[in-house]
Amino acid sequence: MTERVEWVGVDWGTSNLRLWGLAANGSVVLSRSSDQGMGRLTQDQYSSVLHHLLDGVASASGGSIEVLICGMAGARQGWVEAPYLQAPTDLRSLLGGAVRPPLTDAHLTASILPGVCQKAGADNVMRGEETQLLGLAALRPGFAGLVCMPGTHSKWAEMAGTRIEHFSTAMTGELFELLRTHSVLRHSLGGDIDAAERAAGFAAGAQLGLDKPEQLTSELFTVRAGSLLSGRQPGWCAGYSSGLLIGTEIGSRRAAIGTQTVPLIGSPALAALYAQVLAMIGAKGEPVDGTEVVLAGLKAARAFSV
Amino acid sequence: MTERVEWVGVDWGTSNLRLWGLAANGSVVLSRSSDQGMGRLTQDQYSSVLHHLLDGVASASGGSIEVLICGMAGARQGWVEAPYLQAPTDLRSLLGGAVRPPLTDAHLTASILPGVCQKAGADNVMRGEETQLLGLAALRPGFAGLVCMPGTHSKWAEMAGTRIEHFSTAMTGELFELLRTHSVLRHSLGGDIDAAERAAGFAAGAQLGLDKPEQLTSELFTVRAGSLLSGRQPGWCAGYSSGLLIGTEIGSRRAAIGTQTVPLIGSPALAALYAQVLAMIGAKGEPVDGTEVVLAGLKAARAFSV
Repeated sequence: MTERVEWVGVDWGTSNLRLWGLAANGSVVLSRSSDQGMGRLTQDQYSSVLHHLLDGVASASGGSIEVLICGMAGARQGWVEAPYLQAPTDLRSLLGGAVRPPLTDAHLTASILPGVCQKAGADNVMRGEETQLLGLAALRPGFAGLVCMPGTHSKWAEMAGTRIEHFSTAMTGELFELLRTHSVLRHSLGGDIDAAERAAGFAAGAQLGLDKPEQLTSELFTVRAGSLLSGRQPGWCAGYSSGLLIGTEIGSRRAAIGTQTVPLIGSPALAALYAQVLAMIGAKGEPVDGTEVVLAGLKAARAFSV
Repeated sequence: MTERVEWVGVDWGTSNLRLWGLAANGSVVLSRSSDQGMGRLTQDQYSSVLHHLLDGVASASGGSIEVLICGMAGARQGWVEAPYLQAPTDLRSLLGGAVRPPLTDAHLTASILPGVCQKAGADNVMRGEETQLLGLAALRPGFAGLVCMPGTHSKWAEMAGTRIEHFSTAMTGELFELLRTHSVLRHSLGGDIDAAERAAGFAAGAQLGLDKPEQLTSELFTVRAGSLLSGRQPGWCAGYSSGLLIGTEIGSRRAAIGTQTVPLIGSPALAALYAQVLAMIGAKGEPVDGTEVVLAGLKAARAFSV
């Protein structure tokens, strides 16, 4: 017999959402995902998306089920704007900053966790990553150091236990996509990608990015010139561009990284590339399962409220 | 009475072309422009574009008119591919590397000047800029130093008289357009641009780019955060992004620039921004008229052939 769903955790991102039903003992009883991310929804659609995904679960519970949401559902253009906690801050206070969105299903109550902002030094914002960071802290009590979350907008957070001291965001993933789809480099990056060519290009680009992170906007153009002059293949060019961008991201943080072992929260493929580049400067990257940390973060956010 | 057209010079770029009819004494007798740039033409259309623009001129000459073309008409995807001269090289040899495209008008003969490539160090290419550089050398005999040509793909060339020693390309203008139109920053950069806000943002972004050129991909994201957190206006955000990119371009070349006076060949508005940033590092930018140098370059390329 399936255990009863005690509460529901949701990671509601820009392009999709993932939802877990959790039993009183913390085990995952049900798991759903959907492409109804923030980017596709108007404000009045969130409630029915939840209702649909939890159809039968809520009414079977007999009472009211609590839904805890992190991520872009709390953005200004999302469901209800959840204010930011301001770093440096202790992430155990996430639930205290949550907002309660309106729901049409009487069997559900929902809270959207805040994001984290930073105003000291350079302005910065995150939504969703803070819950993963709290989850990492919960899974590794006492961890202190840099955490990297590679992706469209890579986050680097300086953590001390459950405290986030400082963070920065590199537009690495988005820049790669812009270059690949819209720039003059698209002529060099499109076509059949050979895996060996790509790996060779990645290593070369990463080394240059590490050595000369200030030269990014100039080195990118050499991709185009290389395909015109030296017959560089699309695989090599794509690997080189990606390596250059990741190498620049890591190279510009070299002093802060030192020889640390950096937890990498992101897709396994991307985490492996970041680990490769971190190894090139004598540091180490340690891939961490993203689902595991977001679940741990939702649990921890809920636990710290009681 | 108008003087007779002795020959025709053409700067055939990606988006448009400019054409001048020159008398034997070098004065401009006629001037035409068109949006029939390389990007809009198939290989078999170039001849009729020229024929149309020079209708009446060629037949009035009684004999055959020589057309000297520089720029993207000589690219692989252009009219006829003109090979590259390889830097370091003396630009007086441009005409020696020209190709003769097929023409349907018996009153015309045409030559397309080569571009310049570079294989030592980082691969690089230029098409069109080499003719402007030769023109600058002709207008300023004995000039030696860095020349900057700001634009979509900014070129920086180390010149010694008519010799080009080395050059690099920064994707500054293209990156700004990509960010403005396709990235998450488009939400912050769109809308009414206030000139004073823009100027303040530009100065702040330029200073940061000069000081930390390796931080570009991270500092760009602060534009988004700044508009979310601090209510930064589109003018400020646009100025900041532009300043950050130009500051990074110049900051990454700081050692090479030193306190030189750098000729700036490009649009007056862009040249003024580059001059402002060069002044911030104790160097100087000197705007140069682009039409004047390309004309001087076409004349010089022709003169050095006889």
